[in-house]
Amino acid sequence: MNLLKLKKEVYKANIKLYLSGLVTSTFGNVSGIDREKSLVAIKPSGVAYKKLTYKDIVLVDLEGNKVEGKLNPSSDTKTHLELYKNFSGIGGVAHTHSIYATAWAQAKKAIPCLGTTHADFFYGEIPCTRVISDRCIIEDYELETGKLIVDAFKSVDYHYMKAVLIACHGPFCWGENAEESVKISIALEEIAKIALYSIIINPQLGNIKKSLLEKHYLRKHGKDAYYGQEKSNK
Amino acid sequence: MNLLKLKKEVYKANIKLYLSGLVTSTFGNVSGIDREKSLVAIKPSGVAYKKLTYKDIVLVDLEGNKVEGKLNPSSDTKTHLELYKNFSGIGGVAHTHSIYATAWAQAKKAIPCLGTTHADFFYGEIPCTRVISDRCIIEDYELETGKLIVDAFKSVDYHYMKAVLIACHGPFCWGENAEESVKISIALEEIAKIALYSIIINPQLGNIKKSLLEKHYLRKHGKDAYYGQEKSNK
Amino acid sequence: MNLLKLKKEVYKANIKLYLSGLVTSTFGNVSGIDREKSLVAIKPSGVAYKKLTYKDIVLVDLEGNKVEGKLNPSSDTKTHLELYKNFSGIGGVAHTHSIYATAWAQAKKAIPCLGTTHADFFYGEIPCTRVISDRCIIEDYELETGKLIVDAFKSVDYHYMKAVLIACHGPFCWGENAEESVKISIALEEIAKIALYSIIINPQLGNIKKSLLEKHYLRKHGKDAYYGQEKSNK
Amino acid sequence: MNLLKLKKEVYKANIKLYLSGLVTSTFGNVSGIDREKSLVAIKPSGVAYKKLTYKDIVLVDLEGNKVEGKLNPSSDTKTHLELYKNFSGIGGVAHTHSIYATAWAQAKKAIPCLGTTHADFFYGEIPCTRVISDRCIIEDYELETGKLIVDAFKSVDYHYMKAVLIACHGPFCWGENAEESVKISIALEEIAKIALYSIIINPQLGNIKKSLLEKHYLRKHGKDAYYGQEKSNK
Repeated sequence: MNLLKLKKEVYKANIKLYLSGLVTSTFGNVSGIDREKSLVAIKPSGVAYKKLTYKDIVLVDLEGNKVEGKLNPSSDTKTHLELYKNFSGIGGVAHTHSIYATAWAQAKKAIPCLGTTHADFFYGEIPCTRVISDRCIIEDYELETGKLIVDAFKSVDYHYMKAVLIACHGPFCWGENAEESVKISIALEEIAKIALYSIIINPQLGNIKKSLLEKHYLRKHGKDAYYGQEKSNK
Repeated sequence: MNLLKLKKEVYKANIKLYLSGLVTSTFGNVSGIDREKSLVAIKPSGVAYKKLTYKDIVLVDLEGNKVEGKLNPSSDTKTHLELYKNFSGIGGVAHTHSIYATAWAQAKKAIPCLGTTHADFFYGEIPCTRVISDRCIIEDYELETGKLIVDAFKSVDYHYMKAVLIACHGPFCWGENAEESVKISIALEEIAKIALYSIIINPQLGNIKKSLLEKHYLRKHGKDAYYGQEKSNK
Repeated sequence: MNLLKLKKEVYKANIKLYLSGLVTSTFGNVSGIDREKSLVAIKPSGVAYKKLTYKDIVLVDLEGNKVEGKLNPSSDTKTHLELYKNFSGIGGVAHTHSIYATAWAQAKKAIPCLGTTHADFFYGEIPCTRVISDRCIIEDYELETGKLIVDAFKSVDYHYMKAVLIACHGPFCWGENAEESVKISIALEEIAKIALYSIIINPQLGNIKKSLLEKHYLRKHGKDAYYGQEKSNK
Repeated sequence: MNLLKLKKEVYKANIKLYLSGLVTSTFGNVSGIDREKSLVAIKPSGVAYKKLTYKDIVLVDLEGNKVEGKLNPSSDTKTHLELYKNFSGIGGVAHTHSIYATAWAQAKKAIPCLGTTHADFFYGEIPCTRVISDRCIIEDYELETGKLIVDAFKSVDYHYMKAVLIACHGPFCWGENAEESVKISIALEEIAKIALYSIIINPQLGNIKKSLLEKHYLRKHGKDAYYGQEKSNK
């Protein structure tokens, strides 16, 4: 892929995130990868969305070395890179501190799958990582945050679960490109909100049964999907 | 009724639903029926509201066969059809995953009638269906969802209760036409929200007494209604 | 006061209520009184705010007889009139089903005075009426609702407490004119919201102490007020 | 600093506060100080934000004497002055009754540091003052409110904790200038909201561990900060 095109896509995805209302101040960052060139385009650190242009998007290699751009990349860059390295099928990553998903992350609780809205997007409960250890915080915080995520996915397939909660922190989402990672972030916030209200009404709730989860997830995703206008949806 | 007129009405109702803020992404769908021709106009599946035009509205017969339109009808079409077949007096159906109504549906609880705002629109608590069985999920999910609703209305009159919660899923609403089904969806979300906050303040609450329910429902509906500008309101 | 001027004031206050976001659909109504002529201007029943013009405002006498206007007055007119008759110092009344105030009303709980935001507007907790009796519902519902309010103010001074919650229903607010009754409605919703969140954080909370209540209420109201730009504020 | 420039800055910060949605009605006030001249620019009392111009900003000396301006300064002026006198490094102060921060203040609870969003802005839990004594209310309420804040910071460094909750009242925030005090007010409301939802999900939560707090606070603040585009961030 053309790197200019990638930068523009990542720029657009960051703006979409901003317009979605999921981020305040300079929080949040979206990246995208060119798998052939092994280069990642990412939002610069601490730049206000209103002032962001596609020219500000920084290019880094998978070791985090800046390849193009005047500004420093997001301080969370190493977490993004760790995801690209370990989840070889993804093309974009988004990080936010969106209110409701962050509340679940701060509560150190996975978001249970309480209904079909959730199942339409995510195959099961949204995992929450362990709390990061003191050693990891001191040694290489952002890299270790990425490792925590990867660790939480040992028995979870990142193709079917495109979101995670970092305990005491907030969500990371991913997808086939930067745009999808933002779309997943928006869906995550929605289901985090509904789940919160659901457990207020009925604190005894658990995950919906597997048959219902599978039905909804698979009618939208996979080879037998029949939602939407294409024969075979992703 | 002219089928073009029906398609335009259904289009408008879908847009009204979108502008109401009750749906995100491509969720939600509104339909309307021509009772004489036994044809249903419904939103196409997975099409973004922003891109929707009245020409995209799909016409199907009561067996679900497409009669007109290039796109696939909503994946929830069979649920709509089941409602039209069983509730012969209705002309429109709306389905959303609106936050608060969905929270009650996920909590698997009927929304109690806690006040006159509720009673102004709905004659009693909003029923919540049983959780759908594994067999029904596998055999014909959307049809069986419709049957679940009909089952929940064995002892409830659909003329006076124009909404239902599907357990673990979300609400369906109906009315004399597509527009009214959207209006009911908006009212349902409002009373779902107030009910949630009410039970936080006072978890012991039950339904208001029947005399108050009847007074409010009947001053707005039925032959002795005196709300509004007409002698006899619906 | 000129009756045309009164109608325009009441029209403006209704529109302000609508723009405040406190009402949905055709809910809510604001009235104002001409004390010399003993005539009340009030919103017509069930008319959409978007279509409302000042010419639609209905004039009624204190017995509820229509004196001017083509449309039916609000179905809550008798409640307004009962307030004007008993609270001789008020010039305007507003009724809403605003979310948070209605949640407290549905919970059948007075809103405790938990902080200075509350004390800046209301001298003590916002009273909640008894639940209306079956007899009163049947005989003359809207009139009896007014009597319930008056009854709740036997030991409360309506000059210092310009709002009430009708149990299982919602709030009524008043003031020196229609505009103030809307301003009070907005303040009520704000403090109802903060109070709800406060008791979630700390369910043990009670009213703030009297010295703090008096300080805040009196620095904004009464002859020794020193908030704002006038020597003596209302 | 030029006093006209200060007034314009304080005006802009007040408008920013208004546009942020943190204040309703005439609530809230922002001030800024010229340390060389020992003069404070502050919002006039009870003036609607929509009508405010920079010419309305009032200048007072540190004893509260008006030096310039036609209008009365904010009724909270003495609280602002007490902060300027005791926190010699600050240049701006903002006061709001923002919903979520005020809910914590009314609950008389410090906001625990439950996650990294909080730690990015505030070094530890947001302190809540004692409830003001009857004597202090009567003698010099606004001055004593300032003293309460200073008292709560005996063992807290105001450089690293730029916000406080006044029990039964609401928050005060500060920063190097008026603009930063508003920015902190917005961040405070955000973390107050997330904290509320977090404790609903998990009522057992306590502060995050010190290593994580330090990591996040120090990567944005202090001499070794690496967030953003400057070598050494504030």
